[in-house]
Amino acid sequence: MGFRSGRHFVQIPGPTNVPDRVLRAMGQPTIDHRGPEFVELSREIVSGMRPVFGTTGSVFIFPASASGGWEAALVNTLSPGDRVLMFDHGFFASNWQKVAARFDLAVDFLSCDWRRGIDPDLVAATLDGDAGREYKAVMVVHNETSTGVTNRVSAVREAMDRVGHPALLMVDAVSSLGSIDYCHDAWRVDVTIAGSQKGLMVPPGLCFNAVSDKAMAASESAQLQRSYWSWQDMLPSIETGTFPYTPSTNLLFGLQEALTMLHEEGLEHVYARHARHAEATRRAVVAWGLENYCMSPEECSNTVTTVLLPENVDGDALRTVIFERFDMSLGTGLGKLKGKVFRIGHLGDFNDLMLAGTLCGIEMGLQAAGTPHEPGGVTAAMNYLATEAT
Amino acid sequence: MGFRSGRHFVQIPGPTNVPDRVLRAMGQPTIDHRGPEFVELSREIVSGMRPVFGTTGSVFIFPASASGGWEAALVNTLSPGDRVLMFDHGFFASNWQKVAARFDLAVDFLSCDWRRGIDPDLVAATLDGDAGREYKAVMVVHNETSTGVTNRVSAVREAMDRVGHPALLMVDAVSSLGSIDYCHDAWRVDVTIAGSQKGLMVPPGLCFNAVSDKAMAASESAQLQRSYWSWQDMLPSIETGTFPYTPSTNLLFGLQEALTMLHEEGLEHVYARHARHAEATRRAVVAWGLENYCMSPEECSNTVTTVLLPENVDGDALRTVIFERFDMSLGTGLGKLKGKVFRIGHLGDFNDLMLAGTLCGIEMGLQAAGTPHEPGGVTAAMNYLATEAT
Amino acid sequence: MGFRSGRHFVQIPGPTNVPDRVLRAMGQPTIDHRGPEFVELSREIVSGMRPVFGTTGSVFIFPASASGGWEAALVNTLSPGDRVLMFDHGFFASNWQKVAARFDLAVDFLSCDWRRGIDPDLVAATLDGDAGREYKAVMVVHNETSTGVTNRVSAVREAMDRVGHPALLMVDAVSSLGSIDYCHDAWRVDVTIAGSQKGLMVPPGLCFNAVSDKAMAASESAQLQRSYWSWQDMLPSIETGTFPYTPSTNLLFGLQEALTMLHEEGLEHVYARHARHAEATRRAVVAWGLENYCMSPEECSNTVTTVLLPENVDGDALRTVIFERFDMSLGTGLGKLKGKVFRIGHLGDFNDLMLAGTLCGIEMGLQAAGTPHEPGGVTAAMNYLATEAT
Amino acid sequence: MGFRSGRHFVQIPGPTNVPDRVLRAMGQPTIDHRGPEFVELSREIVSGMRPVFGTTGSVFIFPASASGGWEAALVNTLSPGDRVLMFDHGFFASNWQKVAARFDLAVDFLSCDWRRGIDPDLVAATLDGDAGREYKAVMVVHNETSTGVTNRVSAVREAMDRVGHPALLMVDAVSSLGSIDYCHDAWRVDVTIAGSQKGLMVPPGLCFNAVSDKAMAASESAQLQRSYWSWQDMLPSIETGTFPYTPSTNLLFGLQEALTMLHEEGLEHVYARHARHAEATRRAVVAWGLENYCMSPEECSNTVTTVLLPENVDGDALRTVIFERFDMSLGTGLGKLKGKVFRIGHLGDFNDLMLAGTLCGIEMGLQAAGTPHEPGGVTAAMNYLATEAT
Repeated sequence: MGFRSGRHFVQIPGPTNVPDRVLRAMGQPTIDHRGPEFVELSREIVSGMRPVFGTTGSVFIFPASASGGWEAALVNTLSPGDRVLMFDHGFFASNWQKVAARFDLAVDFLSCDWRRGIDPDLVAATLDGDAGREYKAVMVVHNETSTGVTNRVSAVREAMDRVGHPALLMVDAVSSLGSIDYCHDAWRVDVTIAGSQKGLMVPPGLCFNAVSDKAMAASESAQLQRSYWSWQDMLPSIETGTFPYTPSTNLLFGLQEALTMLHEEGLEHVYARHARHAEATRRAVVAWGLENYCMSPEECSNTVTTVLLPENVDGDALRTVIFERFDMSLGTGLGKLKGKVFRIGHLGDFNDLMLAGTLCGIEMGLQAAGTPHEPGGVTAAMNYLATEAT
Repeated sequence: MGFRSGRHFVQIPGPTNVPDRVLRAMGQPTIDHRGPEFVELSREIVSGMRPVFGTTGSVFIFPASASGGWEAALVNTLSPGDRVLMFDHGFFASNWQKVAARFDLAVDFLSCDWRRGIDPDLVAATLDGDAGREYKAVMVVHNETSTGVTNRVSAVREAMDRVGHPALLMVDAVSSLGSIDYCHDAWRVDVTIAGSQKGLMVPPGLCFNAVSDKAMAASESAQLQRSYWSWQDMLPSIETGTFPYTPSTNLLFGLQEALTMLHEEGLEHVYARHARHAEATRRAVVAWGLENYCMSPEECSNTVTTVLLPENVDGDALRTVIFERFDMSLGTGLGKLKGKVFRIGHLGDFNDLMLAGTLCGIEMGLQAAGTPHEPGGVTAAMNYLATEAT
Repeated sequence: MGFRSGRHFVQIPGPTNVPDRVLRAMGQPTIDHRGPEFVELSREIVSGMRPVFGTTGSVFIFPASASGGWEAALVNTLSPGDRVLMFDHGFFASNWQKVAARFDLAVDFLSCDWRRGIDPDLVAATLDGDAGREYKAVMVVHNETSTGVTNRVSAVREAMDRVGHPALLMVDAVSSLGSIDYCHDAWRVDVTIAGSQKGLMVPPGLCFNAVSDKAMAASESAQLQRSYWSWQDMLPSIETGTFPYTPSTNLLFGLQEALTMLHEEGLEHVYARHARHAEATRRAVVAWGLENYCMSPEECSNTVTTVLLPENVDGDALRTVIFERFDMSLGTGLGKLKGKVFRIGHLGDFNDLMLAGTLCGIEMGLQAAGTPHEPGGVTAAMNYLATEAT
Repeated sequence: MGFRSGRHFVQIPGPTNVPDRVLRAMGQPTIDHRGPEFVELSREIVSGMRPVFGTTGSVFIFPASASGGWEAALVNTLSPGDRVLMFDHGFFASNWQKVAARFDLAVDFLSCDWRRGIDPDLVAATLDGDAGREYKAVMVVHNETSTGVTNRVSAVREAMDRVGHPALLMVDAVSSLGSIDYCHDAWRVDVTIAGSQKGLMVPPGLCFNAVSDKAMAASESAQLQRSYWSWQDMLPSIETGTFPYTPSTNLLFGLQEALTMLHEEGLEHVYARHARHAEATRRAVVAWGLENYCMSPEECSNTVTTVLLPENVDGDALRTVIFERFDMSLGTGLGKLKGKVFRIGHLGDFNDLMLAGTLCGIEMGLQAAGTPHEPGGVTAAMNYLATEAT
């Protein structure tokens, strides 16, 4: 590529821009993870993470990528042959289903419209039909990073309650946590999976399980084999900061600082900021004459916007033009959306002018690549941002 | 102000955004400035600085702010009572004149139009009238950071040559060096003054004097008192890296990295990039229906644009709205321009999308502050940037 | 503890002191792990890791702690009910055995003398007795971090060869890799497990599997369930830098720099340096009248020295005195050695004077804690270091 | 030199080891020095510096090396031809005298024994003999970095008082401030000069003048020319954080953190720590059979020890052996001490084990270089450190 001046715009929907404060915090000298300082670090992180998950319960932190969090949720709660209910509502839902399938689980993977959230009535009807209460778990992705659709987890929970089904509810909140309001306890989620590299603004390498008492109880009889992912082994980490193996100290330094930042800003403000930037982005998309992939306005994601391109336009060719001409990385189309969409990440450590620069890069890229579009997206976004109070 | 998410836009015309690479380089452990590693560091910096100045001669580096560079230029070359010729072509020209006046120099400070470059004919005529060749030095600011006007130093030199005047030519290149092509040797400048915190992309704290043989010779008989600023004491620093007092090691680490970056990009590309961003900025200003303060198209600065506001609009009130609403710092009006203009820095470690974000911040700020303007500045800039090859 | 001036001495046998260069490298902005820069990063790391492992084959990098590397080795190569041979030669061997036991493997865990390396004849005899060739794998720890004993892996391999047993040979090289010469290919090891936080001088959070063709072939029929740890999924990471899930980008930046440093120093020099510091440490221990826990001179570890204390001396009380008085962390006794020993890490980014400071801290700590000992350990070490060429 | 593993020991008496916390603080993005954040930064620094100087008055901070502080002290208070009294008590006293001589001052430079502090009676007698009260200033170096002698400034002040002489008292505290108790107000010092790179633990590039009301009054009539160094121009910096030219923002970030550290530790503890390390060092020197250059026990410096070598031993050759074999930088002999001594810096961010490593490096260096000495220096220091409470 040759030398590129200025700051690269990483507008993929994660890993997100890591704030300088977090990078500097990660630069602290590694400490003994069995010493007294580590105990403090560990406790501060757990208590900082709890409000982000909306829980007062257990939060386990693994030195692993978020995919490990999926695996941890499964192997701690289920036994070989268990039946689970999943929904084909996006690329990551589909990936999680593949993980489940590898662990000898009987996965019912129901077809859904990727352009909308999971229909709670489908959940209710399916579970109602499960007379033998064979489903041990219902698994959904809160914010589908591939489609830009945010599922209403509370509605899924209500559907489960409506039919009185005892299955565990497991939720992937990887690309929503820390950016979109999430209520592990209030929604009675049993396992929430998250990672460090999205709204938490830390480089990749940490994953999380927030765990309900019900899920914890299930782990006592679950027969899937586990060692690295064992919650039981991890239990002391919450109270005493003692991990069963070496934790990822420097990423934890980063997380500590990121949590400080989230709480300095205030979670309410963080969520409002993301909502504001997402709305500005969607207005730009509409003004360009392009289509928001998400067709359900109240379910559009506040962290990522998936933009549907006209037929015959190759999203990856457009992304390449934008990368080469304007030094910005956008998200590619995943799975069946390959080439048909591009994705704009607007989450994490972000502000109005970074968003404005991002949208200008897209508008100029559309022009430079000769993609059919209307100008005016940036103007529409600016009109919104300039008049809508923060 | 409360917590602010994302990256602050520092669009003052310096100090500029320091690249991460430079910040990290500054984080290296301090070394013994009398040891062998320091010699290498020092030599590499001098040889990296020379092409930036356009010289093969002496470049002195002081642990000081750029204002110290003005003082160094004067006290090394002049004697009490010496007459010097300066031009009232901006705030920094005026400040330099005040420094000169403090050192017992007889300063002729000629009125000029701040909205244009110095008229070479005025230089020629004034010097021609100096029958006794009393003027020992002519002093100009290459790029007036207050007005956004870039003087044609080569034309000033030609004017001096035309009338055969032997005065030294001293030039402040603080806000142009490393961003706008500069030719110390070709233009036969005698002393060029620069600082670290503009186009050189290093935090403030270093200043430079590039010095011709003629100026060096003048220093042998110059009678102004000096110790800290003494070029003679500094001479060994160029060959052997031996400074007369402790140099600013960590800022030099930063400078070493910044020079690496400038040379990786290639100085020609650096200058072209700045020209491109400046042109896009001026087009935005025109589209907003505002006025570029610089009235002479070929003398508009490629590093800073001074924007003249309508009467009754307070530039500082506008800047405050932009700072508070959009987290961007713009330059204030200086001296007689206080409140009447604002200034946009578009120099240093910068790219198209950072510029786009900057211009969006201004356009939204104009709207939010209720400043009379046309929309369309950002669109005009985008049209230029999207179609003009880098 | 209150404020402590100066640099803490982290002389546990890992995580080790992370060099400033590595910490700064980790501070680079996170990049798109699906972009072109990441491919380069990934390739450079794989080719830098190969000589450290002594292999030209596959090296897989997981975003996980080293314990995950144990699990990965098992689940990729073995099937439920498989019999494996392990040796009770230290705390980490014992931990690995526990992991194996969780995965439905039939582990034969042979008693050994913790103060010596595994007896190759025991290996040969046991395998020879396995007429049905039921053992699918032999698993040993190269450098037992708990005992300070380095096993002769080549002798284990020879023992296996002697009796012609086809079991896979799996080796934990967590606390030796990058510090003690290791020859994955020459010793025909099938899986070598390592982590980032010891000789590789990177914070914890990455683990490695170096994998022979034979082990790779075994993974095709192995029936243990796996997803996160799947080598097959990881295969593209080696050639194209494409990971099956988000890799730990910033730790990889650190690893890239650490590998650069190891190769700048030269692996031969790295190994010789560790040998030299270990010898100096052992001489200090002897001079103090204390006992090196390792009783087999040719098997003493070059990265960690386990020091046996007199009866009635509590190693942890001594460690506490040293931590509080001299701001140094030493390793605690693990497992059955709890309280009876302390451990000195002398590996990673280390030099003579850091070792000297470490030994002074111990000698002063012995004195301050009233532990029976002879003075003169530091003197003995200095005599060796001052006269033995580096 | 080739690659060197581990941390270089910078045991010159400044620049000192910059703590990681300070280096990271310097890595913060540069801010607008005319914005609101800078005002806060500036105020916090001034109020943090005052107790370090022992003053409630004015502290000026210049973006310059400490030598600039000498010049600032002179040009703000004196007029051409003024007579000043200085003492030849070390290399830096001599350098300061040269600066004074360049500014048209009539310097009386009295011979002293470099191995002891200035004799207060000499001060009194000389000033008493100045019937015309011609001396405008008495200038002394508090802690002579070349000799390792700390002058009793309070005794100098008493001597001046005894004879009722009205001269200003100016003191260079460059290598004592922040390490040795200093009382600008209590000792009625008029100008104290300091720099950032010694006890303040910040890289070089900042210098300080603490200024009494009497000195401030003198600056109103002082006739030496000045601009960069003008206290009058700097006055607003104290109240409003407004500097007359761009301040060295990132070094100020570092200073802010360093002051936080000094106050976290507590100045009393900082001073006691330095005294303890100095005493241990001197005991090592005596045990080696070498001579502390300072012959006056109560005036030995707590920040630097100058060690006199036997005749025929070249200190620089010894330093080279230590640098090459043990990767430690020690201070060279300066001025007339060239080759005859070496200097050990034991100041700044330092602790017992760093000192122990330092002394081991010297003891091993003496052995490796074949310098005649007794062993046992390290042992003597350890005995002191292990038994003397911190």
